[in-house]
Amino acid sequence: MTDTTSAPAHAMPFTAPTGTRHPLPAPELGAAVRADDRAHVFHSWSAQSLIDPLPVAGGSGSTFWDYEGNAYLDFSSQLVNLNLGHGHPDLVEAIRHQAGRLATIQPSMASDVRGELARRIAEVAPGDLDRVFFTNGGADANEYAVRMARLVTGRRKVLSAYRSYHGATATAISLTGDPRRWANEPGDGSVAHFFGPYPYRSAFHSSTPEEEADRALAHLEQVIVLEGAETIAAIILETIVGTNGVLVPPPGYLAGVRELCDRYGIVYIADEVMVGFGRVGEWFAVNGFGVVPDLVTFAKGVNSGYVPLGGVIMSPWIAAYFDERPFPGGLTYSGHPLACAAGVATFEVFERDRILEHVRDLGERIVAPRLAAVADAHPSVGEVRGRGLFWAIELVRDQGTHEPLVPFNASGADAAPVAAVAAACKRAGLWPFTHFNRVHVAPPLVIAEEELAHGLDIIDEALDVADAHLG
Amino acid sequence: MTDTTSAPAHAMPFTAPTGTRHPLPAPELGAAVRADDRAHVFHSWSAQSLIDPLPVAGGSGSTFWDYEGNAYLDFSSQLVNLNLGHGHPDLVEAIRHQAGRLATIQPSMASDVRGELARRIAEVAPGDLDRVFFTNGGADANEYAVRMARLVTGRRKVLSAYRSYHGATATAISLTGDPRRWANEPGDGSVAHFFGPYPYRSAFHSSTPEEEADRALAHLEQVIVLEGAETIAAIILETIVGTNGVLVPPPGYLAGVRELCDRYGIVYIADEVMVGFGRVGEWFAVNGFGVVPDLVTFAKGVNSGYVPLGGVIMSPWIAAYFDERPFPGGLTYSGHPLACAAGVATFEVFERDRILEHVRDLGERIVAPRLAAVADAHPSVGEVRGRGLFWAIELVRDQGTHEPLVPFNASGADAAPVAAVAAACKRAGLWPFTHFNRVHVAPPLVIAEEELAHGLDIIDEALDVADAHLG
Ligand SMILES: Cc1ncc(COP(=O)(O)O)c(C=O)c1O
Ligand SMILES: Cc1ncc(COP(=O)(O)O)c(C=O)c1O
Repeated sequence: MTDTTSAPAHAMPFTAPTGTRHPLPAPELGAAVRADDRAHVFHSWSAQSLIDPLPVAGGSGSTFWDYEGNAYLDFSSQLVNLNLGHGHPDLVEAIRHQAGRLATIQPSMASDVRGELARRIAEVAPGDLDRVFFTNGGADANEYAVRMARLVTGRRKVLSAYRSYHGATATAISLTGDPRRWANEPGDGSVAHFFGPYPYRSAFHSSTPEEEADRALAHLEQVIVLEGAETIAAIILETIVGTNGVLVPPPGYLAGVRELCDRYGIVYIADEVMVGFGRVGEWFAVNGFGVVPDLVTFAKGVNSGYVPLGGVIMSPWIAAYFDERPFPGGLTYSGHPLACAAGVATFEVFERDRILEHVRDLGERIVAPRLAAVADAHPSVGEVRGRGLFWAIELVRDQGTHEPLVPFNASGADAAPVAAVAAACKRAGLWPFTHFNRVHVAPPLVIAEEELAHGLDIIDEALDVADAHLG
Repeated sequence: MTDTTSAPAHAMPFTAPTGTRHPLPAPELGAAVRADDRAHVFHSWSAQSLIDPLPVAGGSGSTFWDYEGNAYLDFSSQLVNLNLGHGHPDLVEAIRHQAGRLATIQPSMASDVRGELARRIAEVAPGDLDRVFFTNGGADANEYAVRMARLVTGRRKVLSAYRSYHGATATAISLTGDPRRWANEPGDGSVAHFFGPYPYRSAFHSSTPEEEADRALAHLEQVIVLEGAETIAAIILETIVGTNGVLVPPPGYLAGVRELCDRYGIVYIADEVMVGFGRVGEWFAVNGFGVVPDLVTFAKGVNSGYVPLGGVIMSPWIAAYFDERPFPGGLTYSGHPLACAAGVATFEVFERDRILEHVRDLGERIVAPRLAAVADAHPSVGEVRGRGLFWAIELVRDQGTHEPLVPFNASGADAAPVAAVAAACKRAGLWPFTHFNRVHVAPPLVIAEEELAHGLDIIDEALDVADAHLG
């Protein structure tokens, strides 16, 4: 996939015109789309009659719009996957080109784009990780990473964190440490959950990030010992916990996890499905912590979700285990050429347009100071935290007690205060990501500075609605 | 997705020129592809150092070719997914068009192509099935179908057949009734396996297909009773068993399964991942048996695998269960617009080019008589069976005892006789599908009559190699 000459060259990150509108508002078309959807599409994680999915007509850059002519600045990058925004010309061109060459070929053959993407991933992967098993998405990447860990260790148990999401197929949902697991129990009986660091709501009564790291590691070691180190195949961790709170691990924590894994012969799996590929200004978030896991799982940002793709990046010692023994797993679309072509284009865009630098710059220069001001201004804001273009605003009833603005796992009327903040954002033209008592900031990485500032203005204003719910 | 006017119109099914060659054999390019692959791609189901994946340079219709200028007539449709062949202009155009409109949007929104594809699937689905939950592939479709069945019944156990393949994520591999499950055990402890009908190797000592159907149903009822009907959420069955032998159920069997499911309150899941979308000349293979399952899973043929896509088609009563209760499952790429656009185009091609009729015609007029002659001519052929463009040639040491030409699950030297047949096919320019002691015939559905006849000639001749291994 070296023929990218026909793709338009950009000196600057690709950005969409702010406030782009659907060229011709077409409410009757929107009604037809809604009718098909309501009659025939079954939606994930939902009670079907209690939802009203928005018909989306199009998108460009950081904006998408409906059939009524309403445009939304996307501060959730869809499901935090649309790292290069909608309609990115290089990704579109790569897909068009590959579709005409060879859309698909079975996993047992060799394909130029598949090999090129694997090589490029290996080049930026932490440490000596250099082999890629491709999957369709994040859940199956985690399924196969756990399988590899179980086989190479001959052990079965997996430790994962409360407040985590790892996907929804059987193993992945068992790993998950949030309420989405509950309705799927009993799950894999060989998964045990532990507490990760969360300075703002410490499970360890710590008062500084350093203390939190130390105590969280002491806790993890206790769990390892009490679960039986020789029974534990793997520890899986989101490098920065995503949906469950943009929890950035305090200094020393991940290095300590690596150390515990080494000490007890446990495989360290880093789930980078949400934070990999630039979300926090690094190819992989672990790179920013100087830590080398044994396996890294990815999806989403690898090609911005233009074509379903995920995978597992493997340490040489794990890959070597399967040199002469067959790996017992696979899927029809492993290493799908169309998906890989969009991945190769992603690398080209990241490098040419200096996406990682752009993310770090915007995070430090725009988001961090602005959210600090937001925290000062709003009594409902308990904490803001994050890095790059990945931030959480934690809403509380009381800045002293940290009592959350809405209860854990709230729904319906209980969740109303946060739903009201979301509604205010949408009215102002911003599509927010909210979860429990938090508003996240996770726009496309190609967002322009003015768009980002405008979006933060909208959130700032919408938080007045949260303030109004206090005492 | 109604703008298909720019796609070329075909009066006849799209076919590639037979024996198309890579325009410019480029062995150095092939070597570079192989180098990237060997260094960085981890392959499914394989011992990595014991394989040598063929670098594929391109494909058109029923043919693909390598970098040396060798073209192969694809009698396995890749992994029995490439129903419309390589480079189908309508699918390519649909992907190109959708990539420029909106490659992706999150599952919680409504999308025109997603809704249109769901509606079109509902139109051809068995009985009153009319709601679609989209996934990335076949394994996760089965995972979510089982989840639905467990939730609506409040029961946990699932019955599936020996000699079946249902995918490789945790639940799917537990359902699987072939050796690919073994290395993944212990799996889901709530799965029990039963024997399906297989007249040629009856587990029930039957001597006619009718007797086989009756006895297989009596066996299944015994398993239901002894496992405890009130513990059983679902029975999952490949309508025609695919990889494990193109086992066409004898008349009455599937209707009997439906009846048992009704009697005992069990959800009937039909896995149509391999046989759906035209493989046997029906939209869904169950349609040819006049049976309506509660859930149908699909993938592969829905868009020929040009973009990863799968899903579950749901009975209204199952969908209704989740009207007010959330369905606890989902994935980032559920209902992916790019994948759905290729699915909508698939419907247009099937209808315009009368693909189902083409498949039935070729199956009855060309394949059936030709394979009957092959069976007569070769002492190594025990049985030929199939329908549409989906057939198995079962190779035996002895036509009287049915002793297979190679042992069950043979590998290495044990598998040599079948490997030699495959090698002979490849030398003659045909890429075969072989499994255990069988050669399958599963070319793209758009194959031209002359190509099909030519491929069958090659197989006929290659079977001399099998004959030579006898006595
Ligand atoms: C950290 C993490 N892991 C895994 C997944 C699952 O990915 P997918 O939805 O592609 O199965 C997600 C999805 O949001 C995720 O955020
Ligand atoms: C009948 C059947 N079910 C399920 C699957 C799994 O599909 P996937 O490989 O897309 O996970 C397959 C794949 O070959 C299959 O043939």
